[in-house]
Amino acid sequence: MSLKPKTPQESMAVLTEIVLPNDTNTLGNLMGGRLLHWMDIASAIAAHRHCGRVVVTASVNNVSFNQPIKLGEIVTMHAKISRAFTSSMEVFIDVWIENNQTGEKKKCNEAIYTFVAVDQVGNPINVPPLVPETDEEQKRFTGALRRRQLSLILAGKMRPDDATELKALFFK
Amino acid sequence: MSLKPKTPQESMAVLTEIVLPNDTNTLGNLMGGRLLHWMDIASAIAAHRHCGRVVVTASVNNVSFNQPIKLGEIVTMHAKISRAFTSSMEVFIDVWIENNQTGEKKKCNEAIYTFVAVDQVGNPINVPPLVPETDEEQKRFTGALRRRQLSLILAGKMRPDDATELKALFFK
Amino acid sequence: MSLKPKTPQESMAVLTEIVLPNDTNTLGNLMGGRLLHWMDIASAIAAHRHCGRVVVTASVNNVSFNQPIKLGEIVTMHAKISRAFTSSMEVFIDVWIENNQTGEKKKCNEAIYTFVAVDQVGNPINVPPLVPETDEEQKRFTGALRRRQLSLILAGKMRPDDATELKALFFK
Amino acid sequence: MSLKPKTPQESMAVLTEIVLPNDTNTLGNLMGGRLLHWMDIASAIAAHRHCGRVVVTASVNNVSFNQPIKLGEIVTMHAKISRAFTSSMEVFIDVWIENNQTGEKKKCNEAIYTFVAVDQVGNPINVPPLVPETDEEQKRFTGALRRRQLSLILAGKMRPDDATELKALFFK
Amino acid sequence: MSLKPKTPQESMAVLTEIVLPNDTNTLGNLMGGRLLHWMDIASAIAAHRHCGRVVVTASVNNVSFNQPIKLGEIVTMHAKISRAFTSSMEVFIDVWIENNQTGEKKKCNEAIYTFVAVDQVGNPINVPPLVPETDEEQKRFTGALRRRQLSLILAGKMRPDDATELKALFFK
Amino acid sequence: MSLKPKTPQESMAVLTEIVLPNDTNTLGNLMGGRLLHWMDIASAIAAHRHCGRVVVTASVNNVSFNQPIKLGEIVTMHAKISRAFTSSMEVFIDVWIENNQTGEKKKCNEAIYTFVAVDQVGNPINVPPLVPETDEEQKRFTGALRRRQLSLILAGKMRPDDATELKALFFK
Repeated sequence: MSLKPKTPQESMAVLTEIVLPNDTNTLGNLMGGRLLHWMDIASAIAAHRHCGRVVVTASVNNVSFNQPIKLGEIVTMHAKISRAFTSSMEVFIDVWIENNQTGEKKKCNEAIYTFVAVDQVGNPINVPPLVPETDEEQKRFTGALRRRQLSLILAGKMRPDDATELKALFFK
Repeated sequence: MSLKPKTPQESMAVLTEIVLPNDTNTLGNLMGGRLLHWMDIASAIAAHRHCGRVVVTASVNNVSFNQPIKLGEIVTMHAKISRAFTSSMEVFIDVWIENNQTGEKKKCNEAIYTFVAVDQVGNPINVPPLVPETDEEQKRFTGALRRRQLSLILAGKMRPDDATELKALFFK
Repeated sequence: MSLKPKTPQESMAVLTEIVLPNDTNTLGNLMGGRLLHWMDIASAIAAHRHCGRVVVTASVNNVSFNQPIKLGEIVTMHAKISRAFTSSMEVFIDVWIENNQTGEKKKCNEAIYTFVAVDQVGNPINVPPLVPETDEEQKRFTGALRRRQLSLILAGKMRPDDATELKALFFK
Repeated sequence: MSLKPKTPQESMAVLTEIVLPNDTNTLGNLMGGRLLHWMDIASAIAAHRHCGRVVVTASVNNVSFNQPIKLGEIVTMHAKISRAFTSSMEVFIDVWIENNQTGEKKKCNEAIYTFVAVDQVGNPINVPPLVPETDEEQKRFTGALRRRQLSLILAGKMRPDDATELKALFFK
Repeated sequence: MSLKPKTPQESMAVLTEIVLPNDTNTLGNLMGGRLLHWMDIASAIAAHRHCGRVVVTASVNNVSFNQPIKLGEIVTMHAKISRAFTSSMEVFIDVWIENNQTGEKKKCNEAIYTFVAVDQVGNPINVPPLVPETDEEQKRFTGALRRRQLSLILAGKMRPDDATELKALFFK
Repeated sequence: MSLKPKTPQESMAVLTEIVLPNDTNTLGNLMGGRLLHWMDIASAIAAHRHCGRVVVTASVNNVSFNQPIKLGEIVTMHAKISRAFTSSMEVFIDVWIENNQTGEKKKCNEAIYTFVAVDQVGNPINVPPLVPETDEEQKRFTGALRRRQLSLILAGKMRPDDATELKALFFK
């Protein structure tokens, strides 16, 4: 495949949102579903920038909601491609909130979405390889293979014995 | 704990939505983020009905988007509690679309969300146990423990050796 | 007309909504207009399922708002065809709210909408007959004719003397 | 009751909306539910202006959708009080669309909503009397009594024999 | 150019909105961006009515936000063409809020938007001349030329020496 | 005033949006009002980050819409403080769209908003000074004084003779 490789930085997407009344539950905190929606848009933009094609959400691998985000708070999302496979891309989204007085930023969420690049009739199409640069990018790149094996096993599309990367997790 | 057990059926939530223009991407298909939002509301209602308390999204364990859902299609979501832990509840959401002419229903998505019941200041609070009834409910109830171990390992909160249920997946 | 008759149950639509901040008036109660919108979607889905065609709202016959619905409450709508005429369908929508602690359901609204099935250029098209099953379905089926006569009189399309069903209401 | 009477003109509300993509069905026409929502806001503003209190939708008496309204068309609503009772107000909404090239206006809908004025805990409260001025206002004022009797009968709160105004409709 | 002249009154647009929770900031006041959006729609409708063509926003010349508008308040906008140039139209929007108890109206904003009429491929197209009638309309008509010169200077498209109308502002 | 000065970079806000169907006019282009709304949020976040207080939109000084933005395009906004006065802040917003295939970015809009920092009852409150760093930041910092004089003159709050900075524009 001759597509020119790209770095995670080249396609990073930054989204910033203010939590409005209709985004909150009865405790006045951001509803999980709204954040899932925002992160889908953030990661779709990153995936689109990486491949220059229409991209569709293939899966949400794991999202944890560790702490409440309050009405009126500013939410910043950084979405970066962590690994590119043949036609799919894994995207990490880091979510930050900032203290209203001091401006100090605190990480409050981390999520992993997977997208597939498709042509105009919806068929999968090749995407450029990813070349990780920083230590964190390299670590997420490596982990992506393990997560992919896990997904394939859970979906019944891979035999556990063949998941060499994943098995290492249990017998390292 | 003396909370009265409940069945999945008692708290099942049914949501129906029509895919409107603003829900779609440039291919005219439902965006993943919108469906994630709808499924969060569906599963939050089921979790709330199970425990009668405020519930907050704790995690999205796994969602796969297997096929496009078109503009104008009717999307039906069935959300049912699959297992209750001390203060958290795992919820399965099955998503159906129906053929516009024949009305035939086809399953197009399956997702697993986890919710935590909280009191008015946001502290976790006990929820009633779940008593599965049908074969599918029983199967999902059993699998919930394995998924929970996997989450704990991935979050670094459990040693792989202790994940007895999960290891069985690799050495059955 | 050879279209296969259907029961109300076959096309019943269930919608569930949580009352969010933007749905409420300054008293913190659900605005009537929002509920009218939700009921229109619920009844449109039921009408569409009955006939498998595009349906358009023809009229709202009567809606009463008997009690306030509060912010954060869960609203469940059941929409069922009450009678099918040549190309139009009368739909009953029953609206329920549930007590947040006990889960007990209370009926809070009842509305009647009428839809017309149309082809792709918007011309009316025949719909299947309806076969009521339960006592309530039978009662609503019978009343539909009276409501239709009333509509025609109010619209100046029927002479009161010809409204035999309706006159019985006044001289029974 | 010593509240100062008002004319319909004093509280008339004018709303103008452009039909946007998300307001339309699969035929590209305005969905009935959206128009019901807009008319509720228009008539709530008129009712509020008449009495200077919080108002809540009590009922939608009759709405007919006679012709499709297209994507991009400009919809103008005129809402005027047609009659004030002790604590309730009947409101007529006339809906107009205009030809995009010629600007010619065409009436496309007429609806009747009823509102109740309430105090801060939601109890009904007296409203000023209405003094109709034009011929049309006078005609709608008279008809309001008949419509009220019909509502009461349909709700089982009035015996048909007592509905003197309504009976005249059938025996004039 | 033979297009038939029109008066400001002929194309005036009236929009009325209630400030809902999602329109407000953390002080419970209408956010500026929401009002900018509403005023854009109001002025687009006026511009469209003047020329009967598709219109696109060309610029926002000046908007001042002088006083907060509260949650639940009724906002009325009057948009009128103040001057028509070859293919562009300047529109004044006056914004009013009314006291909830007394109904007394108070002007709270004034804004100036400019629109361009375009054909179906987006090219500018001639619009009818405007004939101001009232004193205020005449005054705004005259000022429009000065504002246009100012815009052209700021955009570097006119030499300050040629801005005869504008210079008079500084040396009158 | 002893508030610690800040650079424009410290409070820069980046917002990214995809143009969805409901954001577009009948030509399929982004409506001006929607962009005005997005830019208000972007600049409010930058102003808030600069002063750590609630900020309210005071004015929109000038916005030009030079080229259409299409449905599905990705819009990126960079909002930076250009100058801080006693309690107000001028914010520049640069708007970029990117070519879907090549990813090449093109500037399509530039706007200037002014915000005021307020305390919890809405009274103006001091903000930190701004220290421009780059050439562009320095140029915008200088121009801000001229724009402020122009606003004051147009609002009738300054005599043209006193607008020394502005007069230089005409007699340089």
